[in-house]
This record gives sequence, C-alpha cells and structure tokens, in this order.
Amino acid sequence: MPVYADPVDGLAVPAVLLQAWTARLVESLGTPPDIAADVAEILVASDRRGIASHGTARLPNYVALVEAGVLDPAARPVRDAGRPALQRFDGRNGWGHHVGRVAVDAAIDAAAVLGAATSVVHNSNHYGIAGWYALRAAQRGMIGISLSNTSPLVAPTRARQPLIGTNPIAIAAPAGRFGAFCLDMATSTIPRGRIEVAARRGELLPVGWAIDAEGRPATTPEAALAGALHPLGGEEATGGHKGYGLALAVDLLTGVLGGAAFGPNILGLFSTEGPSNLGQAFVVIDPAAIDTREAFERRLEGYLEQLVAAPTVPDAPGRILIHGEPEAEAERRADERGIVIDAVHAAKLTELGARLGVPFEPGASSPTTPPGS
Amino acid sequence: MPVYADPVDGLAVPAVLLQAWTARLVESLGTPPDIAADVAEILVASDRRGIASHGTARLPNYVALVEAGVLDPAARPVRDAGRPALQRFDGRNGWGHHVGRVAVDAAIDAAAVLGAATSVVHNSNHYGIAGWYALRAAQRGMIGISLSNTSPLVAPTRARQPLIGTNPIAIAAPAGRFGAFCLDMATSTIPRGRIEVAARRGELLPVGWAIDAEGRPATTPEAALAGALHPLGGEEATGGHKGYGLALAVDLLTGVLGGAAFGPNILGLFSTEGPSNLGQAFVVIDPAAIDTREAFERRLEGYLEQLVAAPTVPDAPGRILIHGEPEAEAERRADERGIVIDAVHAAKLTELGARLGVPFEPGASSPTTPPGS
Repeated sequence: MPVYADPVDGLAVPAVLLQAWTARLVESLGTPPDIAADVAEILVASDRRGIASHGTARLPNYVALVEAGVLDPAARPVRDAGRPALQRFDGRNGWGHHVGRVAVDAAIDAAAVLGAATSVVHNSNHYGIAGWYALRAAQRGMIGISLSNTSPLVAPTRARQPLIGTNPIAIAAPAGRFGAFCLDMATSTIPRGRIEVAARRGELLPVGWAIDAEGRPATTPEAALAGALHPLGGEEATGGHKGYGLALAVDLLTGVLGGAAFGPNILGLFSTEGPSNLGQAFVVIDPAAIDTREAFERRLEGYLEQLVAAPTVPDAPGRILIHGEPEAEAERRADERGIVIDAVHAAKLTELGARLGVPFEPGASSPTTPPGS
Repeated sequence: MPVYADPVDGLAVPAVLLQAWTARLVESLGTPPDIAADVAEILVASDRRGIASHGTARLPNYVALVEAGVLDPAARPVRDAGRPALQRFDGRNGWGHHVGRVAVDAAIDAAAVLGAATSVVHNSNHYGIAGWYALRAAQRGMIGISLSNTSPLVAPTRARQPLIGTNPIAIAAPAGRFGAFCLDMATSTIPRGRIEVAARRGELLPVGWAIDAEGRPATTPEAALAGALHPLGGEEATGGHKGYGLALAVDLLTGVLGGAAFGPNILGLFSTEGPSNLGQAFVVIDPAAIDTREAFERRLEGYLEQLVAAPTVPDAPGRILIHGEPEAEAERRADERGIVIDAVHAAKLTELGARLGVPFEPGASSPTTPPGS
C-alpha cells in the first residue's frame, strides 16, 4: 500500500483518542461495543501505518451504508460450514473488520493445533487494510495470509472494461529486528486512489497504470478514471496477464470458494444499492509445526539482513527496503507525535461526530499514549 | 509460462513413447522405477503443455547433476516433521519431481479429511513446472497451490544484483468446460529463457524486463543476460516492488519455512558445484468442506464464462483468455499429433540415449496414443 507523507498543515490526533472516539461513533450506530472495538482498532491501525485511504477517512462511507440499511451494524458472524482446517464464517452482512478478526483468530487457533488452517468469509463488507489480519498472525509468531475480493476496477488482459477487483494479497511473518515482513498489495499496478492523487497534482500517467474508456492506454488521470486499472504488470508484453491471474486467484479463494459475490457481480465501492457480499480468506501457518518459531524468525531475519545490505542501482533513493518497513516507520511516528490528518479528513470527522452526537474534539485531548501500551 | 509455437521443422514424437523412453533413461541412472515414472510424467507433461523450457530438453542438465554426484537418483523422501495440516518432507537430495509428487499427494489426502493442508519440502531439486502439482489437486476437484524457490536471477527493487529467484507461483482449480484454471507464473516479468529467445531473434527489450550489470535498464538481451531480471511490475513506478514482495513471499513459504536454502544462498541453475537444497510448498484446499466440489466448480465456470465473453480492447489478438487455456490447447495438439521437438532438442536426446545405452528411436514409434488413455 502506498504510504502517503503526513499533510503539512495537518492536525495531530493521538491514536488512542482517535481510536476511542471511532469506537464511540461506531457504537452510536447500534454496534455492540466489542464489535465497535474491532472496527476502531483496524481503521486506526490503517491511519497509524500511513494508509489514510483505508482508515477513519472512510467513516462517512461506512455510516452511509448503515444509514441506507445495507450494512447491519449489530450483526454477529456465525461459523456455518467447514472442517477442522477450513472453516467458513457468515458475516451476516455486518462489519467486515469484525468478521475478519473473528475468522483470522479462528485460523490462528486451529493452526496452533494442526500446523496450518484457513478461514473463508462470505456475506462480508470492506474489511480495511488486508495487512492487519496477516500481522495478527505474525504477532503470534506465525505466517499470516489475508485476501479479499473488491469491486471491479481492473480490466483483465485484453478486456476493455473493469471486470475484476484490485483484490489485495497480504502476507506477514515475524522478522526479528525488522519487526515483521508485511507485503500488503493490490493486484493492480496502482490503487485507484493513486490516480485520484495524480488528478489533484495534474500529473500525466505512465503506460501500464490504466486504460481509457475505449481500452487504449490512459495518459491522463481523467481518462483513467473513466476507464479501468491495469493489473500488476501493466500491458501483456510486461506480464499484465500475471497480475490478472493473481486477481482471479484471489477471487477464487474468497468469493468463489466461500460462496460470496465475485468479479463483475460485486457492487461499486461503498455503493448503497445493496449489500456487498464480499468474500475474504485467511491462511495461517505455524512454523512451530516444522521446528521452532524462533528458528524460523532467525532465518527470515538473516535473509532480510542480506537483502538490505546489498548494493543498489545508481539512482536508488535509498537502501533496499523490506515490505512493511515504511508502514512500521509511519506507525512509530504516529505513536510518538499523533496521527496527522488533513483538513478535509478532520472536517469529515467533525461533521459526522456532530450529526451522530459524538463530538470530535481532538484539541481537548491529553498527550499521546500509544494504543495497546 | 510462455507457450512456444511448435518448431516448423520439428520431429513429432508420440507423448506416450517419449514418456516411456524418459522413464527408461532416468532408471538407467540408478533411479527406482516408481521414482523414474514420476520424473518422466512431469517432464513430458511440460513438453505436452508447450513449455519446452521445463521438459525433456532439460534431461542433459539432470543427468549432469547425477553424474557429478550432486543429485542422488535413488533417494527416497521421508516425512520428517509436521502436524496433521502442515507436514514437512525431506527430499534427501533426490529428484524434485518425486518428492514434489509425494508431498502434494500427502496434502491432497490430508485436505480431504481436514478441509485444507500444506506440505513443505526441503533438500529438494528442480521439480519441473509448478503447475503440474497444482493441477494434480484440481484433478481431484480441489484447489492446488504450488510454490518453489529457485536460483537468484532477479534483482529486488533498488538492488543492482540478482539476489532472489524467479520463484514461481501456480494455482489451479477445476473449471467445468474450461478444464482447469491454471495460473503458472514466474514472479519476474519474464523468465530468463525469454531473454535467450530475444538474443537468438536479435530483438531489443522493453523497459521493465531486466537491468544490466550496472543496474540500469537493459535494452539488449546481451546486457540483460549480464545483469538481472526485473520482478513482476518492472521498475518501482510500475509496481516492481510488488513482484519483489511476491518472490520474497514464495521464499518465505518454501526455503525459510522448510529450512532449505533461500535467496542469494541458492546455487546457480543446474550448478554441479553442490546440492541445490531447494524448498517447495503445496497448499491444497477442498471446496467440499464448504459446500460441494460440484457447486464450487459451477461457480468458477460461470465466472470464467463472463470473462471470456467480455468486450476486448481495440488491438486485442483474440478474446480474453483464462490462465491455462493455451497450455491445455497445446496438450490436446500434442496428444493428437505428438510432441514436436526441434533439431537441437532431438540431438540432445539422441546423444544422451546413445551414451547411456537407452537409444532414442522416435522414428520407430507406433502411431500416437495419449498418455493415460
């Protein structure tokens, strides 16, 4: 996921306060406190990790879904099918964050006994950053994989229209002094939000990002927003069919396996036309089944040490990075100085808080304390 | 994997005869017949699927490994660690194809009981096409994932040197009239073999395929062969860090998890300097644990029907394709007309057969019969 720089004129909000306020706001919609706590933790984790596109800035969209009656804020997921190492959960059209947390925890518990386990989810909604669920397993010393399907924004290789989601893949593992390896990627070349940023900045687009409405390479953000994103790899000559295949594989393991919606049948992002019926999948692998979690973590740490110390290309902006390093750095900064939100974001939260009777008053806040400390 | 067109002046060899001859040749090296049968089946499956780069054309390399004493042709794998849903197999430095077949079959058997299961392999060797093992699960009505690490040919984003393998990812599932969905991809933009083809054809290379020895974009095949491949996505602006992350994730799930070699520590492709100690991993998921295998297959088939019927971009060379379709078409052609091998490939097999006392006499062959019929 792209980590955006903190806005220069932003407001610093202590993460712990933003999380507590978010939980109260979500509760005010009729969400039980334990479910609201999951939603708040995962949305604020995104803000802390510098991924503003998937955090509390999305609260107005979630509230609109609840107010339109297409997301049930009080729904409790149930386990409705499965065997010991493959369980299915019905999200019952509730918060995606909560059923995701329940499902990944079930996979972690089963993996601790069986060595590996998978949970799939249907009747779900957007679950925030895929990486949070993978990191949940990494925090237990295990390997976590988190997948979700999403609304169609990507044109398969040769297709003129968006037919498949940006279907993210996240994988995390504990990595010694690196904290965790955490790859959290859309299977498109870039997320749609990056095109919106280019539009605001007046940038032209490189070939390989998107096509226009006629299926030709989009060179302007406006043409791209009317067209479709390219899968990772871009055009066919540079391997775009591989990104298309990965997006399809994610749909296969989530919507198709779990009996949720998939591909072109998924409604638009945060559409209030009807329930999303998204699918998610979580795979957890316990290295302790092979030797020890410590030995696995030392091997991974040693490998990453080799990578970051290797010589770089002439124009490299810095050393070789490990996936998750920029997000972990943003998290440390946010926990020290607060989460920096821009004026548009702050105005959204203020408006929402006023309307729902949960005033957003970050200025009245006490000094920062990292969440979970 | 790129499916290459049949050579125009090639020799058509019935697959069943090529497979029987390959098994005899592998046995002549001291390989027990059941192990040789696996090696022959998987190598010839590659030839049948049009992936000449991973089939019997590689026999001279495998024979060189055995003759140098760095691959034990008689080794029998053992299960040396694990729990019910995560088992590890020690390939004991024998044929990668055999331990791969044993490990994926163990995962299939465990998944049929538990819903999902994973096998990891260490002390292995090259195992041919990753897709064969994924398809093995698809033939049982399940979802199969097959991963292997390989020798370092790819430069991570910002790195000047090759530090990580082209680490393939294959995933397959049964798909009704499409036979199977089978994505089988290197996590580099293109395989090294494609650069060798460009060298023979005198082609220039697009940006995003490779870097030269100084870490700058390679525009000629010669510069690329002295440098390193780009991960899928190419340069950083077009998502190359995602391909790098996928390659690293494959290494994490194979070499690092299984306790095999990984990353820059893996010897060169078919090096006779020492054992490869490659790692492989197989994940098998049984849709019958959720509802029924038939219902899952119908959902996937319906999805693929929507994709292939969608409108195409103006310059599309044909309709939208499903991963595995070109390979399945090559397989049908090979089973009808024989596997067409070029003169260099035929000469290699003739020389090898003569030297090992197993004459390669495809001309004396009877009409074609599809293997397995």
